[in-house]
Amino acid sequence: MNQQTIDRIRKFTQDRDWDQFHSPSNLAKSISIEANELLECFQWSDTDYDVDSVKEELADVLVYCRNLLDKLELDEDEIVNAKMDKNEAKYPVEKAKGNSKKYDRL
Amino acid sequence: MNQQTIDRIRKFTQDRDWDQFHSPSNLAKSISIEANELLECFQWSDTDYDVDSVKEELADVLVYCRNLLDKLELDEDEIVNAKMDKNEAKYPVEKAKGNSKKYDRL
Amino acid sequence: MNQQTIDRIRKFTQDRDWDQFHSPSNLAKSISIEANELLECFQWSDTDYDVDSVKEELADVLVYCRNLLDKLELDEDEIVNAKMDKNEAKYPVEKAKGNSKKYDRL
Amino acid sequence: MNQQTIDRIRKFTQDRDWDQFHSPSNLAKSISIEANELLECFQWSDTDYDVDSVKEELADVLVYCRNLLDKLELDEDEIVNAKMDKNEAKYPVEKAKGNSKKYDRL
Repeated sequence: MNQQTIDRIRKFTQDRDWDQFHSPSNLAKSISIEANELLECFQWSDTDYDVDSVKEELADVLVYCRNLLDKLELDEDEIVNAKMDKNEAKYPVEKAKGNSKKYDRL
Repeated sequence: MNQQTIDRIRKFTQDRDWDQFHSPSNLAKSISIEANELLECFQWSDTDYDVDSVKEELADVLVYCRNLLDKLELDEDEIVNAKMDKNEAKYPVEKAKGNSKKYDRL
Repeated sequence: MNQQTIDRIRKFTQDRDWDQFHSPSNLAKSISIEANELLECFQWSDTDYDVDSVKEELADVLVYCRNLLDKLELDEDEIVNAKMDKNEAKYPVEKAKGNSKKYDRL
Repeated sequence: MNQQTIDRIRKFTQDRDWDQFHSPSNLAKSISIEANELLECFQWSDTDYDVDSVKEELADVLVYCRNLLDKLELDEDEIVNAKMDKNEAKYPVEKAKGNSKKYDRL
């Protein structure tokens, strides 16, 4: 997400005085709620979905993720790279290649 | 997310030949699953949470969101800004200020 | 669920003094969290799943639903039948037969 | 849930020829989706919620749980009691009393 988009999201919250509702817990609920509106696009079919709805619901997830990053003063690249360090260790290429099993069953 | 982080996520998937599992539907399920591991950090308390777990689970959500953006060849800033256009229209400042009601109840 | 099973769930909570954690909001989070552990059984495949895991996760969802029914002093049959009244009206057989569309798109 | 309610849910599905959409995976998605509509009742407040909405959304979760039990020919009391056996072993009263920690951190 570029800085302009991030700033727009922040201004949106600020203008509406919504920071008071953005506890980490409420934002976690919101991410799950929006993730399930996204999931609803695929409720009855894996292949026959409306891409415009997918775009909107995915955007909603991303906006709430940005709100939570802001609330906890986290750097997106930092936390994602720290997690990728772990993922690369948990899923070594030679074991995980072409395999969708969870790391504890590899 | 900067380009280097995005490239790292893509290489992770590619090296493991996991693109075959990344149908939009499976990724939507994955976003919801990780969103709920994030929610689990707040299951019994809104205020007493482990920030390291929050970082990891939020990172997982963001990685799967990136996978879905890639899979559908979507531009994050484009879809987020398109959704912010709608949000700004649905939640006019004068009506929504300091109010957590859903737009259809404002 | 028969009365004996319901009583066992109630005793389990009571013996551990867990009613204090069972706010409706925490139970709603818990239902979603367990629903996503159930969803995880189908994360990468719709057909290749472990039925024992499905049983356990579905049981967890049902236990937390029972906790929420108890907490709000709701009668399961009453709320389900009230909702079925609505569902039957929203999805008339002649329109909905063989069709997975949502009622507002029928 | 009494037999009459169960029969009503089954007839509802049968009359609409919806069993074709009720794969275990689709039902797991549906349970999560409805669980998150339930969660939405508590999105911005833990205490200020609309109990009628809670009733409806909880009923939706219960109906899809019933659909999944039926689909996999599971007995609700059997799977719940099998899980309660495990829960009672994982959370011994003397350790878990008054404590909301997960079993692996007790």
